[in-house]
Amino acid sequence: MKEIRLSELSRYLDQQGFPNRVEGPGDPLLHGVNTLQEAKEGEISFLTNPKYRAQFCDSKASAAIVASDETVPEELPVLRCQDPYGAMAASVVCIHGVRQHPQWGRDPRAEIAPSARIGANANIAPFVTIDADVVIGDNVTLYPGCYVGRGVVLGDDVTLYPNVVIYDGSQVGSRVSLHAGTVVGQDGLGYAKVGGRWVKIPQAGRAVIEDDVEMGACCAIDRATLGETRIGAGTKFSDAVVIGHGTKVGRHGMFVAQVGLAGSVNVGENATIGGQVGVAGHLNIGDNVMIGAKSGVWSDIESNERYFGIPAFKWKQFWRQVAAVKELPDLMRKLRRLEKELETLRARLDGHE
Amino acid sequence: MKEIRLSELSRYLDQQGFPNRVEGPGDPLLHGVNTLQEAKEGEISFLTNPKYRAQFCDSKASAAIVASDETVPEELPVLRCQDPYGAMAASVVCIHGVRQHPQWGRDPRAEIAPSARIGANANIAPFVTIDADVVIGDNVTLYPGCYVGRGVVLGDDVTLYPNVVIYDGSQVGSRVSLHAGTVVGQDGLGYAKVGGRWVKIPQAGRAVIEDDVEMGACCAIDRATLGETRIGAGTKFSDAVVIGHGTKVGRHGMFVAQVGLAGSVNVGENATIGGQVGVAGHLNIGDNVMIGAKSGVWSDIESNERYFGIPAFKWKQFWRQVAAVKELPDLMRKLRRLEKELETLRARLDGHE
Amino acid sequence: MKEIRLSELSRYLDQQGFPNRVEGPGDPLLHGVNTLQEAKEGEISFLTNPKYRAQFCDSKASAAIVASDETVPEELPVLRCQDPYGAMAASVVCIHGVRQHPQWGRDPRAEIAPSARIGANANIAPFVTIDADVVIGDNVTLYPGCYVGRGVVLGDDVTLYPNVVIYDGSQVGSRVSLHAGTVVGQDGLGYAKVGGRWVKIPQAGRAVIEDDVEMGACCAIDRATLGETRIGAGTKFSDAVVIGHGTKVGRHGMFVAQVGLAGSVNVGENATIGGQVGVAGHLNIGDNVMIGAKSGVWSDIESNERYFGIPAFKWKQFWRQVAAVKELPDLMRKLRRLEKELETLRARLDGHE
Repeated sequence: MKEIRLSELSRYLDQQGFPNRVEGPGDPLLHGVNTLQEAKEGEISFLTNPKYRAQFCDSKASAAIVASDETVPEELPVLRCQDPYGAMAASVVCIHGVRQHPQWGRDPRAEIAPSARIGANANIAPFVTIDADVVIGDNVTLYPGCYVGRGVVLGDDVTLYPNVVIYDGSQVGSRVSLHAGTVVGQDGLGYAKVGGRWVKIPQAGRAVIEDDVEMGACCAIDRATLGETRIGAGTKFSDAVVIGHGTKVGRHGMFVAQVGLAGSVNVGENATIGGQVGVAGHLNIGDNVMIGAKSGVWSDIESNERYFGIPAFKWKQFWRQVAAVKELPDLMRKLRRLEKELETLRARLDGHE
Repeated sequence: MKEIRLSELSRYLDQQGFPNRVEGPGDPLLHGVNTLQEAKEGEISFLTNPKYRAQFCDSKASAAIVASDETVPEELPVLRCQDPYGAMAASVVCIHGVRQHPQWGRDPRAEIAPSARIGANANIAPFVTIDADVVIGDNVTLYPGCYVGRGVVLGDDVTLYPNVVIYDGSQVGSRVSLHAGTVVGQDGLGYAKVGGRWVKIPQAGRAVIEDDVEMGACCAIDRATLGETRIGAGTKFSDAVVIGHGTKVGRHGMFVAQVGLAGSVNVGENATIGGQVGVAGHLNIGDNVMIGAKSGVWSDIESNERYFGIPAFKWKQFWRQVAAVKELPDLMRKLRRLEKELETLRARLDGHE
Repeated sequence: MKEIRLSELSRYLDQQGFPNRVEGPGDPLLHGVNTLQEAKEGEISFLTNPKYRAQFCDSKASAAIVASDETVPEELPVLRCQDPYGAMAASVVCIHGVRQHPQWGRDPRAEIAPSARIGANANIAPFVTIDADVVIGDNVTLYPGCYVGRGVVLGDDVTLYPNVVIYDGSQVGSRVSLHAGTVVGQDGLGYAKVGGRWVKIPQAGRAVIEDDVEMGACCAIDRATLGETRIGAGTKFSDAVVIGHGTKVGRHGMFVAQVGLAGSVNVGENATIGGQVGVAGHLNIGDNVMIGAKSGVWSDIESNERYFGIPAFKWKQFWRQVAAVKELPDLMRKLRRLEKELETLRARLDGHE
């Protein structure tokens, strides 16, 4: 956390690719970024979601980052720019900085197999276990309680938060961050039913996490039965995401919490998958696909489509169905009325004959 | 576990605020509370759910706690009271007691930063890590494998079960219990898309768990991007509950397993949220709200409402829709018949002209 | 991993109960089993899902296991048999073998209570904690970070992967494997509301895991309030499965990831429960029941039934409803047309009078 004048922040954001102009009274000293509702004096806030516009009145923020054309209270110093969300993110980096890990060096209470090869500047906490034949890059931080299985490869600048487990043979790229309790490379649900019992199929494949992936807490990524489970470069998972054996996720995806993909699914690049979505096994999901929260997917999805629902349909179809179901009780009343009217007409017609 | 006569239990329950009267033969010696189905001789059972009334016949229980007006086999000694559920709970406390934690004192194999301040009667297991500037109250039990990050504050009488992780800067109140594998304060899913890639927004906020909260195993509570994620006093979570960054949950809530709240949600007091419910981001959920299991919520909910469904509607509307959908195939048959009858009428009318 | 000729593998599979015949050119040397898409030279593949038939053309596999009557490229050596899935599984065992655990013996950095009784050939990693009065069978492997609470009983040949937690009093049978981060025997969601606050009911029961159970990563199995939570012999869970207090699951079940059963549910034998299914409390689910992925179950299910949907209905009824909902917008148009036609008819009839 550092202190900075609004005018200095403006110059910093300019340099970071967020051209902006400052308006309003004074040049406040800022020591934090915060939401309109929670900001205290000395903090800069922002408006990126119109839903929160009304909070300007009560906010104690000393300044705000807003869109070029936003209307704001005139006593509030503002920094106007075209991409207030990006400027807010850059301001957080500037003022709050990134997490400073504790420095453990290579703690003697970590259990490191003699055959493990570990790069420069290792930061390995007590109670970490690194098994035989592991290869670890430079600048890696392993928090307490992490387990790195035999033959695992970790790239440079990897951070494993406390109690992360990487099973034997998994590969993890550079600049990967896995949050506490996440597990990579455990056996998937692979059994054959023989004589009424489930007989285990050894899970002989592996799990591969490419560069720049970040996962939240308590995710579980199965190793493949054969071949690979693979999470593409730059993809981000929230918490408690579960990926089945042999599934491949393309680059730059965004998975909200509690998503579950079954085994042997192929997801293309730039997927946006809402919270609690489930995808059945052996499906193909194209590039740039969006799947709404809580959907259940039982069919392939072509590139550039938005799907929603259980089972998932194209976005508009889903909402049309929701609207129709909402009108159903009305519709049933109408139908009963029609039946009666038809009956009346028939009686009248009978009277004519 | 202790042994107690039915008459003694009756007096104990009286003192605890559960006036009762004993009926039936004898004064059995009791050493356990159990369900009707699983009770063995020497155990007292109870009837709080009418669904299980039929199990009286086969139960081996030596006594039972029942409502004032319940009909029971006359050979069974019973303790009648107005609130048999509360009396059962109090009987469990009386006979079984509460969990006795192993006593580790301050185990020398725990890693405790010199700057950490730890209260009286600390019970800290081996393989615990307590980082710099942590402040811990009195009578705290930390099971093996727990990690308490820099600057965390824990209140008095906190219990962290094995492998619980509290990230840097989080605040945990007094009498909080977090079960094994639960994680508090990890980074939420905060990124801005810049040039086709997800750029991380440092998660500069924190997570706050107020007094008397209990969480099950494998929960994940994101820290806020800015400001606070907050779980209100007295709120109870089951297992695998996930709370997004910046979300606030009011006091005395009850969340069943696998609930997921996205980020920036506000939930009022006394919320009852069923299992596997999902709530989309930036919503306001009032006080005393009930949301049925598996619901998906995409709109604000006012205080005192019961919601259900995907998307969630008011409770009655949901069941009306379910009933309507069930009748849909019938309705379609009816519609086809109406079309035919209309056709017949038209033909008859044509014949008249 | 070992090298084996196709003709040798054929004889091995014969002996394992998979009669087969080899066809095609040569007798390739094999060092791996892999999918058609990912197989490299020297690997044998298989076709068990017709969806992948087209991948024969591009596969680099040196041989394939196929059904007796499958059409395959003539230059590909194949091993034909009646049960290609079982033969594939046996081939994985033959060529890849099963996981070889690191050998720790009884690592002195494990914390083992003096009163714990541990069988022959124990393999106990550093940073394991075994509490008082624990009884452990022969040939047990405990990975780093595991916690085994007071009075727990583990059978023979049990494997607990890293950071598995078994609460006090739980019973775990022989040949059980629990993957990383799984928690057994934590307190369930048991509270009574007294004066507007949730008062904890001590969870005095226990959790029992029978023989030959395997669970994926991050599962959570509550102990019972009273009596037992029980997972039947031979049952297999994927990741992040949550089981409520007092629930009983029969033998030989198969639960896909993220399933949640509430408390006091009874599930029979041979259950197949799809991913993300939720089952409400106090229900009876019979033997041989299948529940489709994402279903929400609010009613008992009889033996041998297949259920699907939210709320779950019989399989056919679910799909009939899905089809009907899909036609709803059409149906509403039809109804409006009928109303108009009726109006016209009425007008014509009025003209007659």
